[in-house]
Amino acid sequence: MRIIVVGAGGDIGQAACKELQQRHEIVTVGRSSGDHRVDASDINAVKSLYESIGNFDAVVCCAGDATFAPLARMTQETFMVGLQQKVMAQVNLVLAGLDVISDAGSFTLTSGVLDRDPIRMGSNAATANGALAGFVKSAAIEMPRGLRINVVSPGMLDVSAARYGAWFHGHKPVSSHHVGLAYAKCVEGALTGQVVIVD
Amino acid sequence: MRIIVVGAGGDIGQAACKELQQRHEIVTVGRSSGDHRVDASDINAVKSLYESIGNFDAVVCCAGDATFAPLARMTQETFMVGLQQKVMAQVNLVLAGLDVISDAGSFTLTSGVLDRDPIRMGSNAATANGALAGFVKSAAIEMPRGLRINVVSPGMLDVSAARYGAWFHGHKPVSSHHVGLAYAKCVEGALTGQVVIVD
Ligand SMILES: NC(=O)c1ccc[n+]([C@@H]2O[C@H](COP(=O)([O-])OP(=O)(O)OC[C@H]3O[C@@H](n4cnc5c(N)ncnc54)[C@H](OP(=O)(O)O)[C@@H]3O)[C@@H](O)[C@H]2O)c1
Ligand SMILES: NC(=O)c1ccc[n+]([C@@H]2O[C@H](COP(=O)([O-])OP(=O)(O)OC[C@H]3O[C@@H](n4cnc5c(N)ncnc54)[C@H](OP(=O)(O)O)[C@@H]3O)[C@@H](O)[C@H]2O)c1
Repeated sequence: MRIIVVGAGGDIGQAACKELQQRHEIVTVGRSSGDHRVDASDINAVKSLYESIGNFDAVVCCAGDATFAPLARMTQETFMVGLQQKVMAQVNLVLAGLDVISDAGSFTLTSGVLDRDPIRMGSNAATANGALAGFVKSAAIEMPRGLRINVVSPGMLDVSAARYGAWFHGHKPVSSHHVGLAYAKCVEGALTGQVVIVD
Repeated sequence: MRIIVVGAGGDIGQAACKELQQRHEIVTVGRSSGDHRVDASDINAVKSLYESIGNFDAVVCCAGDATFAPLARMTQETFMVGLQQKVMAQVNLVLAGLDVISDAGSFTLTSGVLDRDPIRMGSNAATANGALAGFVKSAAIEMPRGLRINVVSPGMLDVSAARYGAWFHGHKPVSSHHVGLAYAKCVEGALTGQVVIVD
């Protein structure tokens, strides 16, 4: 398969690529690195991205910013970051991809643990994660041409512990290898409408 | 208690008010009807609303627009409606209310069935519903002063069947009375961080 990985340079993106590149052609995408550049929160930029890439069989998105801040200091502006950059950006990759992805292709998005196992300062990410779960469950029943859609929801990765560990005391880091497998299961398996948890 | 009900004039708002007004003082709020007017998707308008209302013990929000349209016809603009009007508007009522609501007060938001039992054209509402579930679960652990937060998630109401029934064939309409009880349970009980399902 020819697989687009958005956010390929990130911690999760690297874990997904490591597994998928063993059997597939990967097209890497990022805001500031990769074979192609895009800000996925702009659907017109996503449409141009797909045009310049040409044929593809799967989209994996491992990108999505959210604001980490105490609830009491969250503002409408900082809260909208997660809705625009983590929810809308990933939804844009689906909306713009519906007509151009190959038959029986798949979309695999990324959420995270915070809507089932919350932490302080995590309310914006938890909101985005819940949104993505609702989206894939509903979008799956409207997918044309045998297309599929899922979301991978990992705990904090082992490789990310140095960056995020101080917010996640007591959380068991998850194996990046297992996270990579979850993306392979979504892309190469037959699941649809699922939240694939990696704990 | 003195309870602010946003969207009090709507189908769900009326069900909530009918139950709560038996034991409490209700302040009704809507965009175009009620004791006070606000567009909750603007946090500054929400701050002004709370200032003009004065003391209150609970906020119940039964308002929130989303776009109902086939996934293949959804655009970034129409999809943002649910994120701004159903998610951000309800989150605004919480963010702006944290400092001004009475000690041990509560926030009760409204989502709906579509993230657990999806229908065609429901992907934007399903996304908003999932978002609200993630939000209350996470926000609950950061609530100061004994504040609580929950979200009521009803199926299609009996009183709404004439408006929405054509989209919900096969869905069992839920009793408006039972929906009202769910708001009473959230406001008058001790739950927090919960999605209260009314099926
Ligand atoms: N790491 C973890 O332990 C973990 C666990 C669970 C969930 N998550 C979630 O998974 C997602 C990725 O996490 P990560 O730690 O792998 O992030 P990361 O290391 O910061 O990498 C994110 C990648 O996505 C790209 N990107 C971000 N926004 C983009 C946009 N709007 N359009 C295109 N590309 C964009 C970034 O590109 P640039 O660098 O060029 O901007 C970067 O390559 C986040 O939503 C995070 O909350 C992470
Ligand atoms: N009815 C159902 O069967 C059902 C079932 C499950 C979930 N839901 C969800 O529950 C929510 C309410 O549904 P409903 O059927 O009761 O709606 P509705 O009858 O259309 O009433 C909505 C009420 O909320 C007010 N409102 C809307 N947006 C607002 C905003 N930004 N700021 C302040 N007030 C606002 C409206 O005021 P104006 O009229 O003045 O604009 C109206 O009073 C929706 O999110 C819906 O998706 C409904």
